[in-house]
Amino acid sequence: MSEKKIPYKIYLTEDEMPKQWYNMRADMKNKPAPLLNPGTGKPLTAEELSPIFCEELVKQELDDTTAFVEIPEEIREFYKMYRPSPLVRAYCLEEKLQTPAKIYYKFEGNNTSGSHKLNSAIAQAYYAKKQGLKGVTTETGAGQWGTALSMACSYFDLDCKVYMVKVSYEQKPFRREVMRTYGASVVPSPSETTEVGKKILAEHPGTTGSLGCAISEAVEVATKNPGYRYVLGSVLNQVLLHQSVIGLETKTALDKYGIKPDIIIGCAGGGSNLGGLIAPFMGEKLRGEADYRIIAVEPASCPSFTRGTFAYDFCDTGMICPLAKMYTLGSGFIPSPNHAGGLRFHGMSTILSQLYHDKMMEAVSVEQTSVFEAAEQFARVEGILPAPESSHAIRAAIDEALKCKETGEEKTIVFGLTGTGYFDMVAYEKYHDGLMTDEIPTDAQLKESFAKLPKIG
Amino acid sequence: MSEKKIPYKIYLTEDEMPKQWYNMRADMKNKPAPLLNPGTGKPLTAEELSPIFCEELVKQELDDTTAFVEIPEEIREFYKMYRPSPLVRAYCLEEKLQTPAKIYYKFEGNNTSGSHKLNSAIAQAYYAKKQGLKGVTTETGAGQWGTALSMACSYFDLDCKVYMVKVSYEQKPFRREVMRTYGASVVPSPSETTEVGKKILAEHPGTTGSLGCAISEAVEVATKNPGYRYVLGSVLNQVLLHQSVIGLETKTALDKYGIKPDIIIGCAGGGSNLGGLIAPFMGEKLRGEADYRIIAVEPASCPSFTRGTFAYDFCDTGMICPLAKMYTLGSGFIPSPNHAGGLRFHGMSTILSQLYHDKMMEAVSVEQTSVFEAAEQFARVEGILPAPESSHAIRAAIDEALKCKETGEEKTIVFGLTGTGYFDMVAYEKYHDGLMTDEIPTDAQLKESFAKLPKIG
Repeated sequence: MSEKKIPYKIYLTEDEMPKQWYNMRADMKNKPAPLLNPGTGKPLTAEELSPIFCEELVKQELDDTTAFVEIPEEIREFYKMYRPSPLVRAYCLEEKLQTPAKIYYKFEGNNTSGSHKLNSAIAQAYYAKKQGLKGVTTETGAGQWGTALSMACSYFDLDCKVYMVKVSYEQKPFRREVMRTYGASVVPSPSETTEVGKKILAEHPGTTGSLGCAISEAVEVATKNPGYRYVLGSVLNQVLLHQSVIGLETKTALDKYGIKPDIIIGCAGGGSNLGGLIAPFMGEKLRGEADYRIIAVEPASCPSFTRGTFAYDFCDTGMICPLAKMYTLGSGFIPSPNHAGGLRFHGMSTILSQLYHDKMMEAVSVEQTSVFEAAEQFARVEGILPAPESSHAIRAAIDEALKCKETGEEKTIVFGLTGTGYFDMVAYEKYHDGLMTDEIPTDAQLKESFAKLPKIG
Repeated sequence: MSEKKIPYKIYLTEDEMPKQWYNMRADMKNKPAPLLNPGTGKPLTAEELSPIFCEELVKQELDDTTAFVEIPEEIREFYKMYRPSPLVRAYCLEEKLQTPAKIYYKFEGNNTSGSHKLNSAIAQAYYAKKQGLKGVTTETGAGQWGTALSMACSYFDLDCKVYMVKVSYEQKPFRREVMRTYGASVVPSPSETTEVGKKILAEHPGTTGSLGCAISEAVEVATKNPGYRYVLGSVLNQVLLHQSVIGLETKTALDKYGIKPDIIIGCAGGGSNLGGLIAPFMGEKLRGEADYRIIAVEPASCPSFTRGTFAYDFCDTGMICPLAKMYTLGSGFIPSPNHAGGLRFHGMSTILSQLYHDKMMEAVSVEQTSVFEAAEQFARVEGILPAPESSHAIRAAIDEALKCKETGEEKTIVFGLTGTGYFDMVAYEKYHDGLMTDEIPTDAQLKESFAKLPKIG
């Protein structure tokens, strides 16, 4: 191989790590629409949010003017345990594809939670601790968020109650055990520990649960128990703020070597990873300082951006959470059992929705089998076994690199590799055995779902 | 927290990464005893070994005079994809223990194989490819070695046949799927694909297999198929040579900050990790340039060093492999079902055995429940969920740090964190549920096993 000036992995020193998060909203001319109280139809106030979220996080949720927010020293110390994450030059993938494109990926999987979720979990746990709370509650589906939160709570000695969708609790005992190792109590949802859980069990005996139901249980426990608050791993503005550490590190690493990306690609479920990765780049774009192609990649089975509608909708299937203006498939939309659990959300971050609506970014949807094909190709040359969610970004990055091969363009592509797939081997097995299918919603299904959207705004 | 001059993680630059492996044998006055042909009782020659191992590896196996061996550029390129591994200062663990000791660990788990095994797998695959071979065969128990080898073979486009102990094949489908993702064919052992497999199945229908049987099948396939060789992930001299990259990186990282360790600790199964970690330090000790306490940690259920005997013995339970002079519990010894699968080997590397015999290092044995206690304590403060094998070293490191707390000594402790425990959650679950037991062999059991040792040398 030829001489390489850019190393395989660019690591920042601890001194170069970000000391502030970046809040895209400050530079947005069209601010994301506010969350609405589903009862009154009016914007939620700090007072209404504070029984659910702790004070500092309510402030972050509502603040759309402060561009830079200090990262508290305690959080920066924790970040040093698993950050900076490497920005990897995908030399082997480039060679395999025989593309003139230069491909980089920001790898967030080198921690026990296996994903970027830890970046926000530690922040949310810190503010809860600082407020003198006893603990936090949350829901988890596949378990990455629950794992990240249990690690964060263990570090700050906070109680952590995780409501885990019953079917996942039973099918993913390993994830459950990781959370227990970090001292979290993991309850299969629906459970007898809450009123809403009891009600659902009475109405639907034998149900295997849903994320919407787990959210309801976690919120009930947080609001009924003094000293507890509820925390969430995606969608919220505060989460995108914390996740900006991904993009800030990426930008610093690229700047060190004088690299300016042409295309930035991230998978999009609720938006936590994508919003974090693109933050400083979008900032430059919003301020007119630079231009980038920014691409959100979503599963064809749950295509909020590419086939959803921009409207106020409930954030949860149980319709108890606030209303958010976002690209949505309808809160009643049930995506086919796509294995990328982290991308099965019917809606999307309000920030990203507004940016997409304003044509500041693009979106593509990809089918599951082609995603696993890309995942396997990537694993074989780059070594890392990627999470199904992350592999959506790999698919799009490979497609862009192949376009460069055709045109001969030496574009620089950066994508987010959000995590590892070690707990997703059931999906890989289906792919290997040829049992994986692509199920895409019909237009009629979506039309029916849109008809049920709340009539607001 | 106070100001810290030493970062949480010390990373070498790519330029600082080792360009040569170090061969401890060159500096040993008492060389390890040669492998013997079990038929003739005479030292094995290169000619006898070359149908089994590829040529360059036979040379490395037998060479006890060359101190430094060039790492081929192709291997160094691959190393750059997942190395240098970080040397981590365990600030949070130190604080938790309230010890004046300074604790460092070399973390080898940040790659998809989840352990240090990849360091030798890529070297063995490279030499096989260079010799123009079609593929390699091996056995795997828990699956870490098989995973590492499948990754290495995928990179060099070599065929990879893994004989996986049937009980593991069935109980660890995730590991199997990871290997399949990298294109390996994974066969449950015993199988109908070999003569020895058929014989064992006929004699013991319904057997769940053993490592000894899987070795026999892998060796048979390698020697009967033109263009194939057998590879092994531990015990052998060549493996310790490749693994010296761990210790060399560790020493360079410590030297950068002027740190001289007092105690170096590693877990010991066949010796691949321990032999690699201690290599350059042991070199200094052998040459009289420095002194270090070096501690091997083994499970009380399989205590080769601390309760074994130093004698010639078979390397496999099937008694088809060469005889090695080592600390052994007897090739017929069956350890209790300890979950640290990687430490269940009855024998030990001949290099490490000679060094231990010459009192160049110490050994301690630890019980499984205390190992998982240490693992959980470590995970909660340092974030990383450790493999059960690695956790033996954590246990010993914590014990030494607690001794420092009593005496007030500010010792510097370095230990090897060989891997992550993501595929070992069944063991963690047993620990959480209070179902884990410590089963230690009785003196009578060991006496009976020693009586069956071959009468040689």
